[in-house]
Amino acid sequence: MIVVMSPEASESQIKEISERLEKQGFKIHLSEGEQRTLLGVIGQPRENLAETLEAIPVVEKVVPISRPYKMASREFKPEDTVVDLGGGVQVGGEKLVIMAGPCAVEGEEQMMEVAHEIKKSGAHAIRGGAFKPRTSPYSFQGMEIEGLKILEKVNRETGLPTVTEVVDPHTVHEAASYSDVLQVGTRNMQNFYLLKELGNVSRPVLLKRGMSATIEEWLMAAEYIMSGGNENVILCERGIRTFEKATRNTLDLSAVAVAKQQSHLPVIVDPSHGTGHWHLVPAMSKAAVAAGADGLLIEVHPRPEEAVSDGPQSLNPEKFNTLMKDLKEVAACVGRKM
Amino acid sequence: MIVVMSPEASESQIKEISERLEKQGFKIHLSEGEQRTLLGVIGQPRENLAETLEAIPVVEKVVPISRPYKMASREFKPEDTVVDLGGGVQVGGEKLVIMAGPCAVEGEEQMMEVAHEIKKSGAHAIRGGAFKPRTSPYSFQGMEIEGLKILEKVNRETGLPTVTEVVDPHTVHEAASYSDVLQVGTRNMQNFYLLKELGNVSRPVLLKRGMSATIEEWLMAAEYIMSGGNENVILCERGIRTFEKATRNTLDLSAVAVAKQQSHLPVIVDPSHGTGHWHLVPAMSKAAVAAGADGLLIEVHPRPEEAVSDGPQSLNPEKFNTLMKDLKEVAACVGRKM
Amino acid sequence: MIVVMSPEASESQIKEISERLEKQGFKIHLSEGEQRTLLGVIGQPRENLAETLEAIPVVEKVVPISRPYKMASREFKPEDTVVDLGGGVQVGGEKLVIMAGPCAVEGEEQMMEVAHEIKKSGAHAIRGGAFKPRTSPYSFQGMEIEGLKILEKVNRETGLPTVTEVVDPHTVHEAASYSDVLQVGTRNMQNFYLLKELGNVSRPVLLKRGMSATIEEWLMAAEYIMSGGNENVILCERGIRTFEKATRNTLDLSAVAVAKQQSHLPVIVDPSHGTGHWHLVPAMSKAAVAAGADGLLIEVHPRPEEAVSDGPQSLNPEKFNTLMKDLKEVAACVGRKM
Amino acid sequence: MIVVMSPEASESQIKEISERLEKQGFKIHLSEGEQRTLLGVIGQPRENLAETLEAIPVVEKVVPISRPYKMASREFKPEDTVVDLGGGVQVGGEKLVIMAGPCAVEGEEQMMEVAHEIKKSGAHAIRGGAFKPRTSPYSFQGMEIEGLKILEKVNRETGLPTVTEVVDPHTVHEAASYSDVLQVGTRNMQNFYLLKELGNVSRPVLLKRGMSATIEEWLMAAEYIMSGGNENVILCERGIRTFEKATRNTLDLSAVAVAKQQSHLPVIVDPSHGTGHWHLVPAMSKAAVAAGADGLLIEVHPRPEEAVSDGPQSLNPEKFNTLMKDLKEVAACVGRKM
Repeated sequence: MIVVMSPEASESQIKEISERLEKQGFKIHLSEGEQRTLLGVIGQPRENLAETLEAIPVVEKVVPISRPYKMASREFKPEDTVVDLGGGVQVGGEKLVIMAGPCAVEGEEQMMEVAHEIKKSGAHAIRGGAFKPRTSPYSFQGMEIEGLKILEKVNRETGLPTVTEVVDPHTVHEAASYSDVLQVGTRNMQNFYLLKELGNVSRPVLLKRGMSATIEEWLMAAEYIMSGGNENVILCERGIRTFEKATRNTLDLSAVAVAKQQSHLPVIVDPSHGTGHWHLVPAMSKAAVAAGADGLLIEVHPRPEEAVSDGPQSLNPEKFNTLMKDLKEVAACVGRKM
Repeated sequence: MIVVMSPEASESQIKEISERLEKQGFKIHLSEGEQRTLLGVIGQPRENLAETLEAIPVVEKVVPISRPYKMASREFKPEDTVVDLGGGVQVGGEKLVIMAGPCAVEGEEQMMEVAHEIKKSGAHAIRGGAFKPRTSPYSFQGMEIEGLKILEKVNRETGLPTVTEVVDPHTVHEAASYSDVLQVGTRNMQNFYLLKELGNVSRPVLLKRGMSATIEEWLMAAEYIMSGGNENVILCERGIRTFEKATRNTLDLSAVAVAKQQSHLPVIVDPSHGTGHWHLVPAMSKAAVAAGADGLLIEVHPRPEEAVSDGPQSLNPEKFNTLMKDLKEVAACVGRKM
Repeated sequence: MIVVMSPEASESQIKEISERLEKQGFKIHLSEGEQRTLLGVIGQPRENLAETLEAIPVVEKVVPISRPYKMASREFKPEDTVVDLGGGVQVGGEKLVIMAGPCAVEGEEQMMEVAHEIKKSGAHAIRGGAFKPRTSPYSFQGMEIEGLKILEKVNRETGLPTVTEVVDPHTVHEAASYSDVLQVGTRNMQNFYLLKELGNVSRPVLLKRGMSATIEEWLMAAEYIMSGGNENVILCERGIRTFEKATRNTLDLSAVAVAKQQSHLPVIVDPSHGTGHWHLVPAMSKAAVAAGADGLLIEVHPRPEEAVSDGPQSLNPEKFNTLMKDLKEVAACVGRKM
Repeated sequence: MIVVMSPEASESQIKEISERLEKQGFKIHLSEGEQRTLLGVIGQPRENLAETLEAIPVVEKVVPISRPYKMASREFKPEDTVVDLGGGVQVGGEKLVIMAGPCAVEGEEQMMEVAHEIKKSGAHAIRGGAFKPRTSPYSFQGMEIEGLKILEKVNRETGLPTVTEVVDPHTVHEAASYSDVLQVGTRNMQNFYLLKELGNVSRPVLLKRGMSATIEEWLMAAEYIMSGGNENVILCERGIRTFEKATRNTLDLSAVAVAKQQSHLPVIVDPSHGTGHWHLVPAMSKAAVAAGADGLLIEVHPRPEEAVSDGPQSLNPEKFNTLMKDLKEVAACVGRKM
């Protein structure tokens, strides 16, 4: 950590801060520039040290040097983490993993229909929300426990691991008893009570990036889950909020490359929420794979124009099938299998 | 709602959609432009109608006309809502309400000290977090129940209503039994389970704007609480996330004017989180009052450089006292009292 | 265009506006909703009609229906435009076009060295700035005319078409006499005097997206050049400004798919400025091709650590050569050649 | 400047970089942390030194310590700069300066009418664009030279200094011969050729912040003009581009406080472009004054619903008159006169 003193700081003020830090066990490297004095603070800082130093009027700013996350970092664990979803499906290895399915579980028939369709096309897991975080209190809020039970049936019949969102810390254990992968949605990426609870289960967690979260904050959210005891975290880029209005979000594919460089965790991409339009999904799915993603999360609905949620961004099974064929080729030329 | 058909839509496709909507009870106004046909859809749409229509390939886009929130809108209730905090303090009337205090409850002594100081300066309520949502799992997470009990003591001793953050739906009722106002933090503005739970209590809710939430989404979050039965919602602008790095967030004061125009709910401003630097707090506090805010939420700590959280943006009691004097003058010239 | 009247608008006010528009030659479709009356305005509006209507207090908002650009739109010209750069190189057809080279022309030797290296690797055109828009007045501002002359020599020796930035309307014709493609930088996308001047030359224009421009504004900038008489416009996505700090910009690859859908113009991608880090360039180059880009603009410098500008995002010739081999494979699996 | 070496950097690589910098005349403070070595680089760096260092693979990042602008900084000149507009009007002193008028000069009659109205209400200068940067090539582009002549006449008749936008380096001298203040619009804040030309005239320059410019980039743009020889720069905050759609831009009033802290230049605010809606202009004008702005730039049109440009954000003279009365009171309570 570097403490940049303001040009007005007196020698005695600088000395006082240095001594205070030394008393706390840090080694101090003092460096006098032409206008400002810098203090290099060496040692493992406790998290709010930067804040308390910045609150001192003669401190201009504090520049962190080490990354704030540990277990999620590649420095801590250089080799890629491979997360096992069950049913022989693993994310983060040579094989790409395609998870597909509707936004919301609407009923058993719908889920079975989609499951068989996507399995035929080669998908490896099925998604479907039982608890739906909706912008409007007047919208369909999900089938809840009944939805979870449908997911379990689908898994039994098709063997596809299931992915479902959890929104409340108190339903985490119940969801974990029915579904194979627990998803944290974009609005809950910093719902720290939920993250802590997910540290207590063994199910893999699919952690969506918050719509205005930096990559660093995203990895800090992963750190919450990991530091609680669950290291099976899959990162999922799903678009960030920008000024552009032609797409629902701006899919940030460089985040895939950055996250894979700074972390050992697998990274997948959700091109459906990332763009908001089904006709952009094929192009961005291929781009995501070419950028190095370990998998994709794609919305597929048997009849998008009847979907209770996210119809405009859902592919129908036929278009999904075509996309899967195209993806196999792209995967091959970046050294991945499907 | 206006459905804009794409230029490729055939007459029979347009007819099919019109008839489908008419069967659902809507009146359709068809309007043929030079390149596109528009369908004016009259009637109360269910929320996901726009989505299901946009999922149809020959539909170019759907333009909503009415606002998605009802109870929070000024059309629904033209006169200003005044929220009672207890202890004779009301937000939304002629009198400005100043809430001040530390980011986190650190102990009884600290809270009593701050409470007496801010009361002397004329503050109307005290804030202090017992449950702290922190970016890092390794940071101080708050004193929890013990912190709530300290808040209750402070209220008994000073008479100041207390404001504290809730982060988990399952602690809402407990927090409500100790504290006068329940705050929803920026990261939880779309934690819908929390919002629903807050609809079930009678305590006023201070709803911070999400750091990347539009004003419309913010009012939809208020609608969640109100539609659940609790109409005592206070909106709080606290800065949005932008590209600018000189401030922690970009305080959006026009949001005050817009929110007060579109809604009857009181709107207050948090200049401490909004800027992230104590030296910007006085200027932005005065600007907020001049822009029409009904109150302020200001971080005050007896010794900011020792605060466990948010020191850099906290005023010390002396600076807060000076600011209160200045605010009284600004309030007067925009027709408000303090 | 749809005019949404505010709920307070009286019948006579609505009538007055309707009649005013009818006098101007528009047909009006009046549609009375439950709370608001809408006026569908049919006919070719002059550009500021929406603005003058929105200035009327009883008008709530005006919703545009047709796109504001014409010549740049796919509705106007459904087939893809292919732009000829000279030397047998064409952008927008089946073959991908790779343009590479240093940020700035630093001298003849440097340019010749790069030119031979990138040609050997299979690049189709060379870039190099002679006029440099620099954030600091104290930075190297480019070799100007001398730089243009070097570009001409490079073209004569290697046959590679040259791409160079123009920053001042009054040097457009001179630059056009030395270089094959004229680039408009991100900071000048809405320098309308420059755009108009580029409408008067026949050289192709490489139009970078403004760092905070919507896709619609980008196409409007193309319209400026095209409406002036020069239809040889190549769009270039180069990253937009967002809150994310890990990358210099956020490369918006969905913009490629959106622009190609709404326009017939070729679209290329600059992954060097888009990310700001050479180590992210290979992944994002492959992603851009997979997303459907017609070409790439890549910074290559013989010794990036000695570059006078943009060293951190430049590849050295060896890394560029490796990338070119990888790109050939990705191109093949999305049906393109190189 | 701090050079953060990556954890993989070897001792000999660190030594090599240190020696290279020492040869260039810098003093190096080496500081070995637990994982990374830091090099404190002391001396006046040339601007692209950071870039060339960041291009070295074993360098993780470079952290600048001093600000990149000099003449614009408060460290360079601690006392406030007061800019003289002529006609006895000065910006940056105790007196607030209100500049008002239409977006575009539409004719002599219109300008004379506005001038007399705003003068009566107490405005100190009149604005009006003769060269209009318009998003669409099909829009009114301004009266150009004829417009400048009208401004000169208005100044002769009313004594009000005139403010007009320049968009092309080659018309700067002509505009300077007719108008008192030359405005740089948001789209041209980084049109460096225009900025350099403005360094060569003596007229004050009103420099609008780019719609996606950081405060640092804004001050660097001022530095361009000042380093060219013209120190009469007035900064103007006019809103930045964000995700919020309820306002045309997000007016960043903290930028006023930050800019006044980091620079000695006067700072004014344009609440008309900042919000895009006339009904938000009064609230934000008052807020700007309370935040410490040295003046305001307000769009006033005799009949906004007939304006050729920016009608929705223009006040009519009556509303402007009311606002002026309110502003006088706000000014008084923050220690300013009008």
